[in-house]
Amino acid sequence: MKEIRGIFAPIVTPFTDDDKIDYESLAFNLERLGRTKLAGIVVMGSNGEFASLTQREKIDLMKFVRAHLAPSKAMIAGTGSESLPVTKELNEAAADAGADAVLVLSPTYYKGALTPAGLTAWLTAVADASPLPVMLYNMPGNSGVNIPPAVTVALSQHPNVAGIKDSGGVIAQIAQVAHQARPGFAVFAGSGSFLMPTLLAGGVGGTLAVANIAPDYCVELAERALSGDIPDARRMQGELIPLNGAVTSKWGVPGLKCAMAKLGWKSGRLRLPFLPLGAEAERQLAETLETFQSRTGYDLHVV
Amino acid sequence: MKEIRGIFAPIVTPFTDDDKIDYESLAFNLERLGRTKLAGIVVMGSNGEFASLTQREKIDLMKFVRAHLAPSKAMIAGTGSESLPVTKELNEAAADAGADAVLVLSPTYYKGALTPAGLTAWLTAVADASPLPVMLYNMPGNSGVNIPPAVTVALSQHPNVAGIKDSGGVIAQIAQVAHQARPGFAVFAGSGSFLMPTLLAGGVGGTLAVANIAPDYCVELAERALSGDIPDARRMQGELIPLNGAVTSKWGVPGLKCAMAKLGWKSGRLRLPFLPLGAEAERQLAETLETFQSRTGYDLHVV
Amino acid sequence: MKEIRGIFAPIVTPFTDDDKIDYESLAFNLERLGRTKLAGIVVMGSNGEFASLTQREKIDLMKFVRAHLAPSKAMIAGTGSESLPVTKELNEAAADAGADAVLVLSPTYYKGALTPAGLTAWLTAVADASPLPVMLYNMPGNSGVNIPPAVTVALSQHPNVAGIKDSGGVIAQIAQVAHQARPGFAVFAGSGSFLMPTLLAGGVGGTLAVANIAPDYCVELAERALSGDIPDARRMQGELIPLNGAVTSKWGVPGLKCAMAKLGWKSGRLRLPFLPLGAEAERQLAETLETFQSRTGYDLHVV
Amino acid sequence: MKEIRGIFAPIVTPFTDDDKIDYESLAFNLERLGRTKLAGIVVMGSNGEFASLTQREKIDLMKFVRAHLAPSKAMIAGTGSESLPVTKELNEAAADAGADAVLVLSPTYYKGALTPAGLTAWLTAVADASPLPVMLYNMPGNSGVNIPPAVTVALSQHPNVAGIKDSGGVIAQIAQVAHQARPGFAVFAGSGSFLMPTLLAGGVGGTLAVANIAPDYCVELAERALSGDIPDARRMQGELIPLNGAVTSKWGVPGLKCAMAKLGWKSGRLRLPFLPLGAEAERQLAETLETFQSRTGYDLHVV
Repeated sequence: MKEIRGIFAPIVTPFTDDDKIDYESLAFNLERLGRTKLAGIVVMGSNGEFASLTQREKIDLMKFVRAHLAPSKAMIAGTGSESLPVTKELNEAAADAGADAVLVLSPTYYKGALTPAGLTAWLTAVADASPLPVMLYNMPGNSGVNIPPAVTVALSQHPNVAGIKDSGGVIAQIAQVAHQARPGFAVFAGSGSFLMPTLLAGGVGGTLAVANIAPDYCVELAERALSGDIPDARRMQGELIPLNGAVTSKWGVPGLKCAMAKLGWKSGRLRLPFLPLGAEAERQLAETLETFQSRTGYDLHVV
Repeated sequence: MKEIRGIFAPIVTPFTDDDKIDYESLAFNLERLGRTKLAGIVVMGSNGEFASLTQREKIDLMKFVRAHLAPSKAMIAGTGSESLPVTKELNEAAADAGADAVLVLSPTYYKGALTPAGLTAWLTAVADASPLPVMLYNMPGNSGVNIPPAVTVALSQHPNVAGIKDSGGVIAQIAQVAHQARPGFAVFAGSGSFLMPTLLAGGVGGTLAVANIAPDYCVELAERALSGDIPDARRMQGELIPLNGAVTSKWGVPGLKCAMAKLGWKSGRLRLPFLPLGAEAERQLAETLETFQSRTGYDLHVV
Repeated sequence: MKEIRGIFAPIVTPFTDDDKIDYESLAFNLERLGRTKLAGIVVMGSNGEFASLTQREKIDLMKFVRAHLAPSKAMIAGTGSESLPVTKELNEAAADAGADAVLVLSPTYYKGALTPAGLTAWLTAVADASPLPVMLYNMPGNSGVNIPPAVTVALSQHPNVAGIKDSGGVIAQIAQVAHQARPGFAVFAGSGSFLMPTLLAGGVGGTLAVANIAPDYCVELAERALSGDIPDARRMQGELIPLNGAVTSKWGVPGLKCAMAKLGWKSGRLRLPFLPLGAEAERQLAETLETFQSRTGYDLHVV
Repeated sequence: MKEIRGIFAPIVTPFTDDDKIDYESLAFNLERLGRTKLAGIVVMGSNGEFASLTQREKIDLMKFVRAHLAPSKAMIAGTGSESLPVTKELNEAAADAGADAVLVLSPTYYKGALTPAGLTAWLTAVADASPLPVMLYNMPGNSGVNIPPAVTVALSQHPNVAGIKDSGGVIAQIAQVAHQARPGFAVFAGSGSFLMPTLLAGGVGGTLAVANIAPDYCVELAERALSGDIPDARRMQGELIPLNGAVTSKWGVPGLKCAMAKLGWKSGRLRLPFLPLGAEAERQLAETLETFQSRTGYDLHVV
């Protein structure tokens, strides 16, 4: 089993015109990602439109991705769902497909009545049953639930909980978890906009939407931060923030897929409720890509 | 097909000690609910822990409920999910099971990138394909998404969109929808705490957690409001609010199931992430039940 | 002292080109408001840009308004501030100026550490010292603080707390307060978008931005609701919501002042941080005014 | 004029039993703070209960603090208010009192109608008129307003805008501002929980509630971060987070004043709406202080 550290791209799920998974485009992207310096990919993360897929599609997708991804690259499978039995079933399927770990979102729907104890019990039940190491997924922007640091710290003692991907961006919380969790617990930045601070706070990796379009830039940024080259890491981080924003907080998955298409990747169609970006947003996005390239000298186009 | 108006109870899903659906308890509850003045029930609403069920459980559950519910009572099936194809599949199953309508929650997960146009397209695709009339489900407290009134008003023109259950409680929004939607569009209160204002604003029904424990009280309140007996309706509404709060905003589904158990219903176990109420909350809940009964003279115990 | 019930307009504070209070325009507006069916006005409410005024300006403003308002109309003075001694001082000045009551916003800045007990103590200290009856002001949209209903109900027992203006629009909370507060406690709608539901829930008045441009329409709506003419009240309420939205949630004070200027009132300049509406918003606002007039037959232009 | 960089303590305002400013206690604290390694103090920050003071108290307070603070220490005066003319007046008074800079909170009350352009215009008007350099104060937790990074970056070009204290803790925003603002623009952490990440992102100081009780610890942490000693800075930062939380997000100003009293400072009484901590919170707070001391070996007691 591969070690869970380094930079991962949460890949997109391309769809065909008739709303099926577009496996041909997917294979194209996977082949190119296999040639980058990335540690691996996440299949069925938020950027993979996992919430819009059927259980059947998810199971097939994991198998396909593992089969078409370079063997040296790790694969983490996003298996979280609102339902505990559904999550358990997906974790089994992830193991069958050859994933290295599962990324499990907290339940979100009953947020008003979700206690720290209930959240801990749900996640513990997942970890107890999972055939693969579990990475917690804190994504309050989408889920409306923040996993309290004390819950994460307690769960870090579970032998089958390997780490956390934190997309909340509250660096004090990330630092607290990194400081208090058991040694070896893997803290990952969930967004490129706070990769450097996460690594300097004790994190060991990142799962970054922007790594789909700037994979080696993200890897280099991480290396500089971890080797203590603060001025260069800071500059690279500063340049990454607007690019990252364009494919996350600003325009979401539609922005990411649009950017990929402009850069030579095959991102396919979106599934509803997503609609393609409008013309003005697309223009601004193109400008953001240009600006990043001209300021950094990093070519975003897929090779 | 039955008309969608009047008071509905969104029934709970009892679970056994080994976390299966407890059909025996369910049958007990359905038989008693059949003897009330309710117009019908909602299976797999938020109070039914729909988010925690598997697709297989949902399909079986709908069939069982229809088979064990008095034929005179309408059955609405909660079929919303994040995924459009999953929702479509459940709508087909609801029709097979003999439901009268489906209650469709908006997608929630991609709230940051969810535009009114995308939301409209998703809900329209659901309505286009549904074999049953669609009732929209606005539940911002759980979903983090408020269906904008303009979206609801536009969708009210769709021949297969029958109404909306609004659990947000923003009465200005409910009134705006009732005023601007096509005539005949059914606006339902989604909580007992604003049943009277919804009906006076033009609503025609309610789907109320509290109707699981005070069904005939809710029916009588609605009748008084609709017949223009404002002082009595106001008093009944005022008394209902603390009882309603105890089984919704304050203690959620754990509160509702606990109250039911205390009153002679068979509510079974909770599924994770829910845990049973603690002792102090249970004591306060019992007090709330007592207070309601002594102030109103309405006996909450199941017959 | 005048009874605090009925419809009040929270008047705007016109400013001159050099950012002083424009007393001439103010006198013009007051003279016209004096000829409407309004019960009175609120000086230094949110729409009066009270937060942007100096203490000196506030004291002068209250005197001027009382002197130029028809003697038959009540005057409520908005005296809330973050600081308890400042609020006390303003309450004294309001009494000197001849106000009938003071409207006191809860403190807002320390919302994270503001307990119900602290809030109650602050408001009680205000009421203890006030020479005039105190009306509580719940305005969570601006203040970020919701006065919990239990706090309002407890404060309703204070002999110097006369009522509450609730601008939150959560009708269940308004109904709970109206039901549980001491008899005679005056519950006011804080926005025209939920005037009818508030009155039917036991309220006795409203302080409504939209009453600055449609005073007699609001009065008539209230009369119909209170006399039990539900269908007409509902229709009038339905028509009012878009007009109300244009001068509150949608465009705020800049929208209200712009609408007034278009209709013949003298609203003067805004004080920073407000800037005038842009051209497109102004066009949409004009359209909203037209639509309201053509649908209702009510002429919004000042006589 | 002193350079604005390094660690500042936002001092508390002690009150006497009869709710006046307790100048004797204040002098005691200032004398001790003058012997620490702090760069200076902030008078009338959020922890100084500035919102609860009168204008007269503020003017007197600034003078007293400057007179009793060691001449080598810088004094920043918190002069923000909702009102532009009030803020201008306080800025004049701050200059008269001998402050080195003013800290200006954004207006907050009209958050719903506050546009970036309006916010920029208000802050520009403040900077244009201020006799002292202006430090922007971003405090969304209390104000409900986040100053958008693009606004800060634009304002950084104003010759009289010296920097920003950011208490939001969104490190991506802090990093973006540090990267894009004009060179020399001073970015300060607004809380001890993200001091290290702010400095590594290009920040030059911090204004930290926790610096009232652990001044030299905070200074040493900053020195290690700025000199590139990442492992030690990370460890110190990790230990600081729980202590910081106890006097900020968890228990606010009541927590800070209680902690100070326990440690030998003279923090006096709180002004309403604050009430003293309850016994259980006080016990937990004492435990947090003990834990910090035993884990770090740093003695928190005032000398």
